[in-house]
Amino acid sequence: MSDLSAVDAFRGGDGLIRIVGHRGARGVLPENTMLGFEFALSIGLDLLEFDVVMTSDMVPVITHNHRLHAPTFRDGNGDFLTDEPKVASLPSAQIQSFDVGRIDGESAYGKRFPDQAQIDGLKVPCLRDLLTLLRLPDHQNTNLMLEIKSDPDFRNDTTYRKELVAKVVAEVRTAELEQRTLLHSFDWDLLKLCQSEAPTMPTSYLTQMPENKADVGEDSSQSVTPEFVGQRNRIPELVVENGGSLWCPYISDVTADGVAQAQSLGLCVAVWTVNEMNDIDRMIKLGVDAIVTDYPGRVQRRLLDCGIAWR
Amino acid sequence: MSDLSAVDAFRGGDGLIRIVGHRGARGVLPENTMLGFEFALSIGLDLLEFDVVMTSDMVPVITHNHRLHAPTFRDGNGDFLTDEPKVASLPSAQIQSFDVGRIDGESAYGKRFPDQAQIDGLKVPCLRDLLTLLRLPDHQNTNLMLEIKSDPDFRNDTTYRKELVAKVVAEVRTAELEQRTLLHSFDWDLLKLCQSEAPTMPTSYLTQMPENKADVGEDSSQSVTPEFVGQRNRIPELVVENGGSLWCPYISDVTADGVAQAQSLGLCVAVWTVNEMNDIDRMIKLGVDAIVTDYPGRVQRRLLDCGIAWR
Repeated sequence: MSDLSAVDAFRGGDGLIRIVGHRGARGVLPENTMLGFEFALSIGLDLLEFDVVMTSDMVPVITHNHRLHAPTFRDGNGDFLTDEPKVASLPSAQIQSFDVGRIDGESAYGKRFPDQAQIDGLKVPCLRDLLTLLRLPDHQNTNLMLEIKSDPDFRNDTTYRKELVAKVVAEVRTAELEQRTLLHSFDWDLLKLCQSEAPTMPTSYLTQMPENKADVGEDSSQSVTPEFVGQRNRIPELVVENGGSLWCPYISDVTADGVAQAQSLGLCVAVWTVNEMNDIDRMIKLGVDAIVTDYPGRVQRRLLDCGIAWR
Repeated sequence: MSDLSAVDAFRGGDGLIRIVGHRGARGVLPENTMLGFEFALSIGLDLLEFDVVMTSDMVPVITHNHRLHAPTFRDGNGDFLTDEPKVASLPSAQIQSFDVGRIDGESAYGKRFPDQAQIDGLKVPCLRDLLTLLRLPDHQNTNLMLEIKSDPDFRNDTTYRKELVAKVVAEVRTAELEQRTLLHSFDWDLLKLCQSEAPTMPTSYLTQMPENKADVGEDSSQSVTPEFVGQRNRIPELVVENGGSLWCPYISDVTADGVAQAQSLGLCVAVWTVNEMNDIDRMIKLGVDAIVTDYPGRVQRRLLDCGIAWR
């Protein structure tokens, strides 16, 4: 297991639980946008989570689903999409012609985020845009949880998967952010490729038990993630055996035993996605290392009210 | 009544309700801070409300209460204040030694804003700081609702009150923002002084019926505002008779008749402080011109979901 500084930036401790801005701060601002990341940084967050998908011209862009997400993508007329072409089928220039500054209030997805500000003219960022921001002197202490989305359609295309990893790692290296970036995925095989491409970069292992459905309006990762048949109680060990440094369990799966086991093995435990007050309180009781949240202001308030620092 | 552009910037219309960021965006970020104003601007708001109080060295600063507000002011040790000296008793340099980036979660006031981000190192802005920001090319279309807080202790000190108004107006003029600023107060006599000092600047009349208590943790304005005995149904007429351009009633006081009467007299109606979804919906039904809110993202979402533009 790695003990690199990018991992330690996510490690909690006595009276300390870290806050990771999920897709920036999805509860407050449109997800995976530069405006969202800038907001998260402006309130002092030093840990950002976001999702990377590859375009047809092999440019890593920051968006969550493998297809343009109809409830958050609008066309040149300002209308939400009615079909969802694959990101992998479009060149990056075309992807940036869409506006991702609003959420469709009639969609089930939109109803989940009633407080999200709505701004016209926001574009899908390239990975490079965020990395460039992070190089500024003001953000020298910010670390990244870079989720590589694993497309089930390319699951067996090793050449493509290696190129995906290589492209992402190359951009991180060009930006000199290797020491401040975790490579994060549900796809444990893809994380093996990451370790092989970038042995000095820590890997972060996402899990979600198969009985828990994907959140409304989001791609499921069930088809690309291990099933853990007969091994559910050994997940932290499996993460370590696979060379992982951080374990990122789904909020409904996390238990006191799991957290204790993981931490005794030296893993960092960051839980996703923790938005409700009672869930924040449960994470405090469990003593997790980090909380991944759409509402970082709410988590800051709650932690401080409980006498817990978040950095 | 004035028909200046600063008023029209607050005027709604068919399918249009304006959004005014209350103390920036108090539900999201610490109130009356530059960070809060910058957030409000970043999500496209073009109307900002804030409060001005005078220091002992006659510097207009942006803060709500006449006394340093214990639940939001921390001393050099990072502790919330236990006493509340008057702003008017302290020089501006001393006021800026306090940190206003957090809210005391144990206070009744703090409990009202559970989602507010907490940032260390935020200072009380001088009026001049905000005016300087508004002069930037990006913010040429932003208008201000500048509330002058009327200190009951100086109610009968005409010299002091005239100087207060003159100082505030002078700063607005120096920043060349006369055409983009409303002078706003509960104290109708003070607004007379404003009209006399700055005849070309529109005035905005706040009202709250005496049976409605001040919101928890906030200075009451009851002692400086008219009582409207026997004239409650004529408030919009009184605003017009007094030379006002905008009427800003308290959310619990506003009625369909009041809105209709005010608008038929040519007044803009901006209602404070509208935070809850059912209240937003009520304002939509009433057809108010503008909603003053601590949660501008929520109001943007709701208006767009209802097919109503906000600018």
